[in-house]
Amino acid sequence: MIKPFLYLQTQNQDEVVAELKNDRYLRALLRQPVDRTPVWVMRQAGRYLPEYREVRAEAGSFMTLCSTPDLACEVTLQPLRRFDLDAAIIFSDILTIPDAMGLGLHFVTGEGPKFSSTIRSAADIKQLAVPDMADKLGYVMDAISLTRRELDGKVPLIGFSGSPWTLACYMVEGGTSKDFAKVKGMLFDAPDQMHALLDILADSVIAYLNAQIEAGAQALMLFDTWGGSLSPANYREFSLTYMEKIVNGLTRKADGREVPITMFTKGGGQWLEWMAETGVNGVGLDWTTDISQARKRVGDKVTLQGNMDPCVLYASGDRVEQEVARILADFGRGEGHVFNLGHGIHPTVNPDNMARLVDAVHKHSAQYHQS
Amino acid sequence: MIKPFLYLQTQNQDEVVAELKNDRYLRALLRQPVDRTPVWVMRQAGRYLPEYREVRAEAGSFMTLCSTPDLACEVTLQPLRRFDLDAAIIFSDILTIPDAMGLGLHFVTGEGPKFSSTIRSAADIKQLAVPDMADKLGYVMDAISLTRRELDGKVPLIGFSGSPWTLACYMVEGGTSKDFAKVKGMLFDAPDQMHALLDILADSVIAYLNAQIEAGAQALMLFDTWGGSLSPANYREFSLTYMEKIVNGLTRKADGREVPITMFTKGGGQWLEWMAETGVNGVGLDWTTDISQARKRVGDKVTLQGNMDPCVLYASGDRVEQEVARILADFGRGEGHVFNLGHGIHPTVNPDNMARLVDAVHKHSAQYHQS
Repeated sequence: MIKPFLYLQTQNQDEVVAELKNDRYLRALLRQPVDRTPVWVMRQAGRYLPEYREVRAEAGSFMTLCSTPDLACEVTLQPLRRFDLDAAIIFSDILTIPDAMGLGLHFVTGEGPKFSSTIRSAADIKQLAVPDMADKLGYVMDAISLTRRELDGKVPLIGFSGSPWTLACYMVEGGTSKDFAKVKGMLFDAPDQMHALLDILADSVIAYLNAQIEAGAQALMLFDTWGGSLSPANYREFSLTYMEKIVNGLTRKADGREVPITMFTKGGGQWLEWMAETGVNGVGLDWTTDISQARKRVGDKVTLQGNMDPCVLYASGDRVEQEVARILADFGRGEGHVFNLGHGIHPTVNPDNMARLVDAVHKHSAQYHQS
Repeated sequence: MIKPFLYLQTQNQDEVVAELKNDRYLRALLRQPVDRTPVWVMRQAGRYLPEYREVRAEAGSFMTLCSTPDLACEVTLQPLRRFDLDAAIIFSDILTIPDAMGLGLHFVTGEGPKFSSTIRSAADIKQLAVPDMADKLGYVMDAISLTRRELDGKVPLIGFSGSPWTLACYMVEGGTSKDFAKVKGMLFDAPDQMHALLDILADSVIAYLNAQIEAGAQALMLFDTWGGSLSPANYREFSLTYMEKIVNGLTRKADGREVPITMFTKGGGQWLEWMAETGVNGVGLDWTTDISQARKRVGDKVTLQGNMDPCVLYASGDRVEQEVARILADFGRGEGHVFNLGHGIHPTVNPDNMARLVDAVHKHSAQYHQS
């Protein structure tokens, strides 16, 4: 059953494309002057918000929440109602592509994502095809179109995907893994097989992110959650190369504006120079790298996103504000910084501290930008 | 009940101190010429060996295995019987100190280490004292003395401890943690309290490692398993400082030889220069840092230990040998390398691949050392 796209139903894009009222986030990624450092937070729509938990409970399953555009739109907008954020990110999961490839994504409480089928052999890989976006991933596009319309130009909407290596980790292991025995066994013993898998995943991500742009995404994130589990040479060969292929395969233009893309390899602090050379606009930092050092290393090539330790949000509101001020000072004067945590916000954080973070970024950052 | 120490029973140390037949490991840490690169592997005595699993089953509990010197000695020696290793490491746990402080260490299958009591407040910290080594940790010293005697000078015996920050993580969280909410909450909100905890832990580790030297340990390792979870500034303030205090508080001499110490912060590849300045002999590398780059960064200051991805052992024997050769070539000619994995060996690895690793190090490394 092919569901009609909302975004295809709207023939005249101008009808739904409202003027963007707050473009700080887009400008910062293009290294253009801003009045304040923009801020958004990974997993800003999520379990730490009681209103999210309500919708999540109503949906029954996590996948129902992701695949019901109305609900995905609702939870995407929730944090925007509470906090003065500079961007929204579509509520979805990084594993929608393998699910669309037929692997059967489901979530087991306390164990995270699981796949009913796994990819272990050359024959398994041969059976994979780039999913039909309308047929299999239309629900993501519908959620994006709907959210874009609901946002009404308030802030830009970010689309995203997992990186090919990260998707491969889950597809081969069948879920999360402590040691990546199977996926790394394939990497080391059957590199050609691994490259075949990564190649079809890269093509799928390109189609997926271009469809997201078409549906209304104004910026993109590539989440390379497990790139940091690799050696430098293997990171380059099995993760970075495919992310670079994606960057080069994207439209990167919508409504006459550039669609900036940010690459985030968790634990990738040693490889920032490499990421900066891929043609991305932004590079995400976790908190194990000093942002002032990172800025020296990447120069004017890219904007840096990050990099507060998410655990600071377990401390007092005053401590949160102090840490925000420290990171802004560390980055220093000038353009090229998008404030964020160095990882997704933890589910047990007090939302008041999130409010404090967002306000502190705007309050303390004005001094670092030209008036 | 105070058990008499084996090592105290032996008044004449010369009786048990056999001439060291293979001192490659000690020489490499002191940057002295060796004929081949020495090799040992973290968790070389462990679950991947069927003979270990037998003794473990016999012991009933993991803590019984650790605290029964005969059994700890037996499993320490097991890998030496199979593989041509250049060092033994005493079989024990990194959490013996908090257990000796009265926190009640136990192991829950599938969940790892747990403490019956946790440290959450200033009052909790005030109650802690440096444990009496003979009374509370004599079993470790007995295991070391016994193993040293059984080794009969075959290879040196390594003693070890968890770092203060790593111990604090487990003591505050009460076990392993995905997000370190409580221990980081304390770090950010009550830094003085955290410093008080780390200070008594550093004093305890100094007493513990000096007792291990006295009991017969010929080299030491500091395992900073969770230092990599910190920001650079926090790593420096809350982990590195206390490891440096320990390094400065150790005897570092036994039987007329220097007792070298190696510091290993998992995920600490960005801070190698800092570690190299603490006065340690060796710095451990995980596999996310290129060893040739690391060597350039630390210069002649320290020996580097590492740095093979433990998952290579899931691949074929030929691939294992190829990877060993690559790492040796990456390090290049000259002294200052101890071969190891970048993390403990995984429990489901085939022991044949461990044999292949050890043999490959000796086979391929001779060319990089002066004849």
